[in-house]
Amino acid sequence: MKTTTLLLASVLMLLRAIAAEPLSSWKDTASKKAIVSFVGKVTKEGAADFVPVPERIAVFDNDGTLWAEQPMYFQALFVFDRVKALAPEHPEWKEKEPFASLLKGDMKGVEATGQKGLMEMPAVTHTGMSTEEFTKTVTDWIATAKHPKTGKLYTEMVYQPMLELTAYLRENGFKTFIVSGGGIEFMRPWTEKVYGIPPEQVVGSSGKLKLEMKEGKPVLIKLPEIDLIDDKEGKPVGIQQHIGRRPIMAFGNSDGDLQMLQWTTAGSGARFGLLVHHDDAEREWAYDRESHVGKLDKALDEAKAAGWTVVSMKSDWKEIFPPAKAE
Amino acid sequence: MKTTTLLLASVLMLLRAIAAEPLSSWKDTASKKAIVSFVGKVTKEGAADFVPVPERIAVFDNDGTLWAEQPMYFQALFVFDRVKALAPEHPEWKEKEPFASLLKGDMKGVEATGQKGLMEMPAVTHTGMSTEEFTKTVTDWIATAKHPKTGKLYTEMVYQPMLELTAYLRENGFKTFIVSGGGIEFMRPWTEKVYGIPPEQVVGSSGKLKLEMKEGKPVLIKLPEIDLIDDKEGKPVGIQQHIGRRPIMAFGNSDGDLQMLQWTTAGSGARFGLLVHHDDAEREWAYDRESHVGKLDKALDEAKAAGWTVVSMKSDWKEIFPPAKAE
Repeated sequence: MKTTTLLLASVLMLLRAIAAEPLSSWKDTASKKAIVSFVGKVTKEGAADFVPVPERIAVFDNDGTLWAEQPMYFQALFVFDRVKALAPEHPEWKEKEPFASLLKGDMKGVEATGQKGLMEMPAVTHTGMSTEEFTKTVTDWIATAKHPKTGKLYTEMVYQPMLELTAYLRENGFKTFIVSGGGIEFMRPWTEKVYGIPPEQVVGSSGKLKLEMKEGKPVLIKLPEIDLIDDKEGKPVGIQQHIGRRPIMAFGNSDGDLQMLQWTTAGSGARFGLLVHHDDAEREWAYDRESHVGKLDKALDEAKAAGWTVVSMKSDWKEIFPPAKAE
Repeated sequence: MKTTTLLLASVLMLLRAIAAEPLSSWKDTASKKAIVSFVGKVTKEGAADFVPVPERIAVFDNDGTLWAEQPMYFQALFVFDRVKALAPEHPEWKEKEPFASLLKGDMKGVEATGQKGLMEMPAVTHTGMSTEEFTKTVTDWIATAKHPKTGKLYTEMVYQPMLELTAYLRENGFKTFIVSGGGIEFMRPWTEKVYGIPPEQVVGSSGKLKLEMKEGKPVLIKLPEIDLIDDKEGKPVGIQQHIGRRPIMAFGNSDGDLQMLQWTTAGSGARFGLLVHHDDAEREWAYDRESHVGKLDKALDEAKAAGWTVVSMKSDWKEIFPPAKAE
């Protein structure tokens, strides 16, 4: 870059930073203050809690933390849509559970097939194809599928305050990672565009892969064998495998995130844990201790003892979802 | 940052870039020209081969590509040193192979125990402890252990031209990753300091981990179960699992890197593959098709057909190792 270009870029960057007030969808409550105060102290050179840029790692759960998860995980809705799309190639599914019930729209029948039945659907929809074929399927689905209740695209059901938070942390030298129980290959095709988080910073549940030659070209085939369930005790494992150092900030919303917050905040030096509490039945959904999706019970109890920030979606957030785009 | 600070930082950055001629340890031969020409075309906005910054992923093998690997992989020397250090706690090793032979310095005896015997040593030296304990052991060893032939620290046996190459690529918007058959936890403690590659950009062979509570604190225990052998067919798997997109440049030196180069260069658009050929017996070691470490045979044949760059250490590099530091 030439000197003038470089100087111009610097000035532009500066103007942009002044223009966009950070965390503008957050009300000026204790939650926002806790975030800003923490970021202030770890980024202040010479301060006791200063953390060098390479160690500023922040990890975010996805379902219920960055985007919604009701009436069920969006990836489950993807699985159901895929089963319906693939049904013409599988006439035998008309007689075989859990496919038969699903194709009739009988969700109680699907549930009745239990864990074993439910696991068959991810297997047939997520494995046996190349990683590139799967990526294309996800990309097509996420661009068009609509949420059954809101009618929005799923990528429009991300939380505006959390988008601002990830951007705010990056502006302060943080590297932001997703650490989700969701499928790693299901998230990667769209997280960069939607959250500004590139594929190499997405950690999720994963299956084994196998290299094969196909018409003289190498392809990676997705196998029906679990590699990692990136949930609960699996989250610190996923963090260590992918990131290799302990985050200093962790954001979650359910008991599936408990161990990630424990692992993060057990490190030495300044640490920050935060739980998003879904308590806004009007603008989103209200659920916690009794919910079958995103159950928040033990982690909510531990938050008090551990000094983690608990965000009330109702009281702490001005907006839930991003403003609708002009057509 | 205040405007003045920002401007000053920009000017300093610029001066530093002008001061340090890139790739100064590379002779002005075809290899250097191929690198510079490729980087030029993928970074030139508007050009047919332009690649946006987030997609500029470059992957480097470690043993034999970024640092030396003779007379055997340095991690094997670490294993031997650990067995010797742990021997006082294991009196039974005096009678048990392969430990007995190793402790007597009888390397032929060690080899005679075969694959099964050889695998026992990594198991006892790499598993059963927490990730943090292992990191400390590696950090202590790498800071003090000396190479049996050169008497140098192992981190002084990195290739100066490759250090310059990784830095040059980063200056051109690339993200540099290690993708090595070596242990991921063995590399991460020092790659940031030595290569400027942070732990989250290190992919390697790995074992399973398990979260346990120890005195009320979560720890990750290294289990004696293989998770991934990041070599040969395993390299594209490791790349997909960790990075989630296909690199555009790949650098290796042996048949263990063949599939990584195939996977990288089979992608669409501009792609670059490079092999480091160890042909300098005087300044380093000369070996290829017949070597028991870093065998380069099939990949050397394929390089011609595929148009990969083959670097001659003897003819292409002015220096091999970094200049000795003033004491």
